[in-house]
Amino acid sequence: MTVLALTMGEPAGIGGDISLKIWAERTTNNTPPFFMIADPKQLTTLADDLDFQLPIREITEPAEASALFANHLPVLPCPMAAPCVSGELNKKNAAAVQKSIETAVSLVQAEKASAVVTNPIQKQVLNEAGFPFPGHTEFLADLAGISTPPVMMLACDSLRVVPVTIHVSLAEAALSLTTEMIVTKSLITAEALKKDFGIKNPALAIAGLNPHAGEGGQMGTEDETIVKPAVEALKAQGINAFGPLPADTMFHTRARAEYDVAICMYHDQALIPIKTIDFDQGVNITLGLPFIRTSPDHGTALELAGKGIAKESSLLAALKMAASMVGKRDRGQ
Amino acid sequence: MTVLALTMGEPAGIGGDISLKIWAERTTNNTPPFFMIADPKQLTTLADDLDFQLPIREITEPAEASALFANHLPVLPCPMAAPCVSGELNKKNAAAVQKSIETAVSLVQAEKASAVVTNPIQKQVLNEAGFPFPGHTEFLADLAGISTPPVMMLACDSLRVVPVTIHVSLAEAALSLTTEMIVTKSLITAEALKKDFGIKNPALAIAGLNPHAGEGGQMGTEDETIVKPAVEALKAQGINAFGPLPADTMFHTRARAEYDVAICMYHDQALIPIKTIDFDQGVNITLGLPFIRTSPDHGTALELAGKGIAKESSLLAALKMAASMVGKRDRGQ
Repeated sequence: MTVLALTMGEPAGIGGDISLKIWAERTTNNTPPFFMIADPKQLTTLADDLDFQLPIREITEPAEASALFANHLPVLPCPMAAPCVSGELNKKNAAAVQKSIETAVSLVQAEKASAVVTNPIQKQVLNEAGFPFPGHTEFLADLAGISTPPVMMLACDSLRVVPVTIHVSLAEAALSLTTEMIVTKSLITAEALKKDFGIKNPALAIAGLNPHAGEGGQMGTEDETIVKPAVEALKAQGINAFGPLPADTMFHTRARAEYDVAICMYHDQALIPIKTIDFDQGVNITLGLPFIRTSPDHGTALELAGKGIAKESSLLAALKMAASMVGKRDRGQ
Repeated sequence: MTVLALTMGEPAGIGGDISLKIWAERTTNNTPPFFMIADPKQLTTLADDLDFQLPIREITEPAEASALFANHLPVLPCPMAAPCVSGELNKKNAAAVQKSIETAVSLVQAEKASAVVTNPIQKQVLNEAGFPFPGHTEFLADLAGISTPPVMMLACDSLRVVPVTIHVSLAEAALSLTTEMIVTKSLITAEALKKDFGIKNPALAIAGLNPHAGEGGQMGTEDETIVKPAVEALKAQGINAFGPLPADTMFHTRARAEYDVAICMYHDQALIPIKTIDFDQGVNITLGLPFIRTSPDHGTALELAGKGIAKESSLLAALKMAASMVGKRDRGQ
């Protein structure tokens, strides 16, 4: 039975708002069953503030969650050290935020939960409290005990993208790109598309770095010297990869039909098309972990927290994506 | 009376195919009247090959074109030196290609034509024949006698974009960007949106260069040191400019409603969103010339030439855009 572990995320952010909203609309949306790892008192107060008739039920084991889900929001208690005010960060609660993630991972590792879905965290306040990781992904990799960094994939209904370089300046993206980075991330991506998405021979469209993929070296040589060798190395390993493709003509409807994932060379080359196509329902998927992990494609949105106005569509899509991946992996498709 | 001058472009490319198709479907598409500056013999042969019942009529003055257009394709003769084979470049015909552009400009300067619409050219074969310009735009600027380089804007129904750096590598785009370039191109764009698009107080969304617009310097400092001062300089000159904005969240439907044009820092930051949104009907508009000039947003597509299969949608959109701009400028809106 699939049951998803949903972390609390930053308690002063919109995680609570959107999680409650998704449970409240579970029937309409056909939401897969999940339990939250959160502070039951905080959720109860928030539900009252937002006028949700929300029957929270504390659980001690994930196994209780599925049967409860139709009538109750199952919550595995993860108490906070201080009361939470929506929109106001408090580093006293950083330990609980961290604990919620650790618990989710240990439950999925113990096969008591099917997948980890994370609400957004506020890195800065965690770091101030001593959290030694730049973000979720590095923490999850550490908990999983893996040495190859996981891969971030963003997905909506009609497009999947993987940025090879991510949170670096544009100049650094161009200067730091290597053939090895492209090959490593592409291989992890191809493997995940087989295992968790049921795609037998995934087609990888490899974007060029420069305009027109460099136009034969006239606008930069990296597409010849860095990207092309990566495509060749992938083909040599039996991967259905092609490129480097001019990035501007890769993302329209007809072009997207030709591949299962676009491997992009820098952040905005991946994020511009997917957020242009589907701003509200993009999902962030971490590939290369030994377990399934998805998250919404937005931040904590502190300014909207506690008001019940934040859109829940991306978290809902993340829950559904996780459930779908669990199904594919279980059936060994 | 609006009448558009349409150049021949590269005769071995798809310019002939799509021009003939647009004339043939003029009633269905409500095509604005135009005349071609081309070799009547070549067009007649091509029309025969493509099985178009095309009554070409040679004209000596653009003034004849409007009345003829309903029943004939008006052609101002611009004879080629050698017979043309579709798909096969021949530098003997470079002089005619160039002459067609020169004629269009001189007619619009003499107010005998309303605007210049150009079919795609093949730069390489022109350059081999001694054409001393890197492309259309530089040639048009020279013919117009202007010293400030014109600005390329791409437009579809729901988005206009201006790339500040264009045909350079990604690394060079990041390294060569200056505040002055952003300000100069933005001012030309704002002026054109007022004069030729009837927008009284155009809103300019200025994209950041780096992911998340640099996130306060954490991912590159250029957004603080180069882009932000440009936005401030524009505001100081009374322009409704705002930014630097994170580029990935600028282009979805709700975001696009907030501005009239996106000023982008590099080629693919502008081209990815517009080609993702509307691949077939993008129009290239040259701003900052003393006359109106548009062109389709594609190349010569030699491999499709002479087969009647090339899509005419972008050239049709370019003709309609030019006619609309003529109307706006004439009415001084």
